[in-house]
Amino acid sequence: MSDRLIYLPLGGAGEIGMNAYVYGYGPKGKERLIAIDLGVTFPDMDSTPGVDLIMADLSWLEKNADRIEAIFITHAHEDHIGALPHLWPKLKKPVYARRFTGRIGQMKLEEAGIASDCLRIVRPRPEVIEAGPFKVQFVPLSHSIPESSALVIDTPAGRIVHSGDFKLDGNPVVGEPFDAELWHQIANEGDGVKVLTCDSTNVFSPNPGKSEATLVEPLRELIAGRKGMVVATTFASNVARVKTLTEAAKAAGRSVCLLGRAMKKMVTAATETAVLTGMPGTISAEEAAECPRENLMLIVTGSQGERRAATAQLSRGRYLGLEMKAGDTFLFSSRVIPGNERGVIRIINAFSEMGVDVVEDHNGQYHASGHANRPDLEAVHDLLKPKILIPMHGEHRHLREHARIGAEKGLASIVAVNGTMIDITGNAPSIAEYIEAGRTYLDGSVLIGAMDGVVRDRIRMALNGHILITTIIDEDDQPLGDAWVEMMGLPETGRSGAALADKIEDELAEFLENAPDKVVASDPKMDEAMRRIARQVAMEEVGKKPEVTIVVSRLMAD
Amino acid sequence: MSDRLIYLPLGGAGEIGMNAYVYGYGPKGKERLIAIDLGVTFPDMDSTPGVDLIMADLSWLEKNADRIEAIFITHAHEDHIGALPHLWPKLKKPVYARRFTGRIGQMKLEEAGIASDCLRIVRPRPEVIEAGPFKVQFVPLSHSIPESSALVIDTPAGRIVHSGDFKLDGNPVVGEPFDAELWHQIANEGDGVKVLTCDSTNVFSPNPGKSEATLVEPLRELIAGRKGMVVATTFASNVARVKTLTEAAKAAGRSVCLLGRAMKKMVTAATETAVLTGMPGTISAEEAAECPRENLMLIVTGSQGERRAATAQLSRGRYLGLEMKAGDTFLFSSRVIPGNERGVIRIINAFSEMGVDVVEDHNGQYHASGHANRPDLEAVHDLLKPKILIPMHGEHRHLREHARIGAEKGLASIVAVNGTMIDITGNAPSIAEYIEAGRTYLDGSVLIGAMDGVVRDRIRMALNGHILITTIIDEDDQPLGDAWVEMMGLPETGRSGAALADKIEDELAEFLENAPDKVVASDPKMDEAMRRIARQVAMEEVGKKPEVTIVVSRLMAD
Repeated sequence: MSDRLIYLPLGGAGEIGMNAYVYGYGPKGKERLIAIDLGVTFPDMDSTPGVDLIMADLSWLEKNADRIEAIFITHAHEDHIGALPHLWPKLKKPVYARRFTGRIGQMKLEEAGIASDCLRIVRPRPEVIEAGPFKVQFVPLSHSIPESSALVIDTPAGRIVHSGDFKLDGNPVVGEPFDAELWHQIANEGDGVKVLTCDSTNVFSPNPGKSEATLVEPLRELIAGRKGMVVATTFASNVARVKTLTEAAKAAGRSVCLLGRAMKKMVTAATETAVLTGMPGTISAEEAAECPRENLMLIVTGSQGERRAATAQLSRGRYLGLEMKAGDTFLFSSRVIPGNERGVIRIINAFSEMGVDVVEDHNGQYHASGHANRPDLEAVHDLLKPKILIPMHGEHRHLREHARIGAEKGLASIVAVNGTMIDITGNAPSIAEYIEAGRTYLDGSVLIGAMDGVVRDRIRMALNGHILITTIIDEDDQPLGDAWVEMMGLPETGRSGAALADKIEDELAEFLENAPDKVVASDPKMDEAMRRIARQVAMEEVGKKPEVTIVVSRLMAD
Repeated sequence: MSDRLIYLPLGGAGEIGMNAYVYGYGPKGKERLIAIDLGVTFPDMDSTPGVDLIMADLSWLEKNADRIEAIFITHAHEDHIGALPHLWPKLKKPVYARRFTGRIGQMKLEEAGIASDCLRIVRPRPEVIEAGPFKVQFVPLSHSIPESSALVIDTPAGRIVHSGDFKLDGNPVVGEPFDAELWHQIANEGDGVKVLTCDSTNVFSPNPGKSEATLVEPLRELIAGRKGMVVATTFASNVARVKTLTEAAKAAGRSVCLLGRAMKKMVTAATETAVLTGMPGTISAEEAAECPRENLMLIVTGSQGERRAATAQLSRGRYLGLEMKAGDTFLFSSRVIPGNERGVIRIINAFSEMGVDVVEDHNGQYHASGHANRPDLEAVHDLLKPKILIPMHGEHRHLREHARIGAEKGLASIVAVNGTMIDITGNAPSIAEYIEAGRTYLDGSVLIGAMDGVVRDRIRMALNGHILITTIIDEDDQPLGDAWVEMMGLPETGRSGAALADKIEDELAEFLENAPDKVVASDPKMDEAMRRIARQVAMEEVGKKPEVTIVVSRLMAD
């Protein structure tokens, strides 16, 4: 049987977040595999209440763990590295990353009590990592975090460029600029690029992306023009932005204090690994509290309205001895990720109540995206001239639009969502197989499956309330006393004006009085009958059908 | 004691939604009152899971019901009229509205089983309604629903203009255009306008608003250029948009079918009350199912992604015999209200999977807002020349910005959020009193208070899961058998690999074995101890502290 080259997205294709991709080469069903990125996505109350993190279900990879050669991490954003400490123990393979990314990975593993010696720190091209039939190079690309890299993957069936997340930035302030010449070389070596697997998140943005460097002047002007304390938030991992904000503050005669664990961690890691240099000194929260507010700037976490981050804390009042006041300025040097609007708006209104002037980035003066817009994507297609274009990292609509653009240029394009194994051995992609691809939740300290029913039950309780019925059946299979009802998440009284719990107990008492022996003797029959009564009374009284849990305790004859 | 004139927002000031405003005139504490608008706002999983509708808490008005002269409804949007059937029974006063608004109000009251003879249909100015010390005129203003009106309220202390929701549209397609001449008259009668209480929702939109009429051509072109079936969604109450879409479809040789209860209801009410004329005929869903798709257009409800509306149903598959297919077009002739992004994006991706082309209104070609933008608001300030400006209908940030703009022009401006009673007797507003202003939830069929704890408990269950413990204590105050644990919304197994329920039962068994008699004899002590054990075991096993409900059943000696 001849060897084949396959691509299998397990996360990130059909969604933005939790990136996890697999390539394989070898005989069908025995391909040697590499995994790229192990990311997370974040829960919300609508669909995942109580969940801490969401990541790809790696069952297929686990089952084929003996075929995995290595794991590669393109960059240190949570949606590419966040699942490492949770999923690595299921795979236990070497993890390749560049220095800064590796440092972040190391911190994550160590926090989870996992030895970090699985990490292999690599240098960018020309260094080559051999992983079974794959020869992999990390090639710098600009993004909103340092050292983001595409992977150039050479296989016996041809060259793959896996873009990771990227933008075309000639001056990213921190980190390597986009180097067209280097990519021209890569495109023209050997047989050129066979497959481009490419970031799709900004495919609907019609204009060329903005360089990080274009923000320097507007931010300087904004900060220089303010009177009270200035507080700015941005993504903690955007080390370039943190540097720009810090320098702008210094230029305006302000001391800078970084607030928030993630922010400090990123700046420390970037400094230690020497990707961030020339960062001006900052002061501690204690020092900041003593500093006149017109000479102070805070750079804080929580641009997405996260309830526990520094921004939300400041919007609720004092945080580490610091407090916002009328005449201060709060700057969102960020954009709101869809779905986070409510939380961010709540914070803006809280600041408004304090008399704080909030500056949002309405027209892109104070924030630049880290992803390639449509013209930038097209420039990359034109530069790399791949035979096959596989859009990745995007919702279905992004992948479809990106594939459409590729097809218009004559690239063999395909929409492949999570679980779609694509055969890319030949010059056109074809669907090889569908793999069960789901989601795994980190819930408290344990991993649960998205379809386990745990979260479904939580949503049901949240929508419908929960009624508990306990009843005791004596040694002679006769009800002992009345059934007892407890409720949670339901109004105490309904239509009749009587307590809902009492109304249900009354109906249950009547039922128990008249229930035939064979019903009382049967747990399932008792359960069904009492559940029906509780839901019916609740419907009549309060117009809801609650979740019901029934405990029938049967006393045993000694 | 001299008479005073007061303004009291109970809903809509400090939020967008659930409008409810009060004006009063008379001796302090004995003012005669009028209420304006009784609106709702919509729940979300984040803060109000399981709730059906949210409205203002009218406790203060109820307490002072004998002082209320009348209720006025400015227009038929849900956030102005939606609470009428739920809150009117608490007030039982005459309700004044124009014909179309009144028709919608009538339908709402009758659906709730309330006689609609409280409704008084009035004509616009020059008709005057006398309500105690108030003389009220409805004055047409354009908005995104027919017959939206400002109220001109003459009081012994001067003239108030209560804007309601409005835009300045010289050609709103359906309904009355903005009439600057009429407003010039109103501004110059007698002593002119003393107080302008003014819509603030679009205060951050920097450009003049667009007329509804500007959409006619772009919509015609879009629809004429499509091949498969075209489906468009917009707000059901935007009768003008429905008419424009229908005419564009007809011009392109397509039959039109309206889908969704709200859409049909609005069009029917608008036709019956003759505010909508010249509306082309439409076909039924049955007829549409027989119609070739290239000759068909559907206009459907659900532009905000509401799960049960026609748009969401179509995104999930067949609906009333109709189904979207590859090559069809879906148009959002609407904007996403912040907070609804997730649901709308889910639908767009579902359509993308079907191969349907989704057209969103990215640059305002296919949708025009119903609210006055900043330059329009300023035009109204300049036209009416009020002494006092009170921004209403907006989040705190909108009210604050609107007040700032007013103050810059020399208007006496004040930010008054829900519950802030403002004295507007003199030439400058001052805070008279703070009233407890909260929210009331329609939950199933009953009204509950936002602070009742019911919804808080639902959120807790959704975040933490729910554990139920039952235990039986015999006649001698001795535990009878073991405690029994049921769980809902929690993982079955945790760190140790054993079932979580079993682990908790084991710990409880040990506790019950060793518990001192005085603990076993005390319900509160048992409750506290067992709750602590359950939460501690859950924390160790699964890293969560669940909600716990405990039932201790005590057998009584006969």
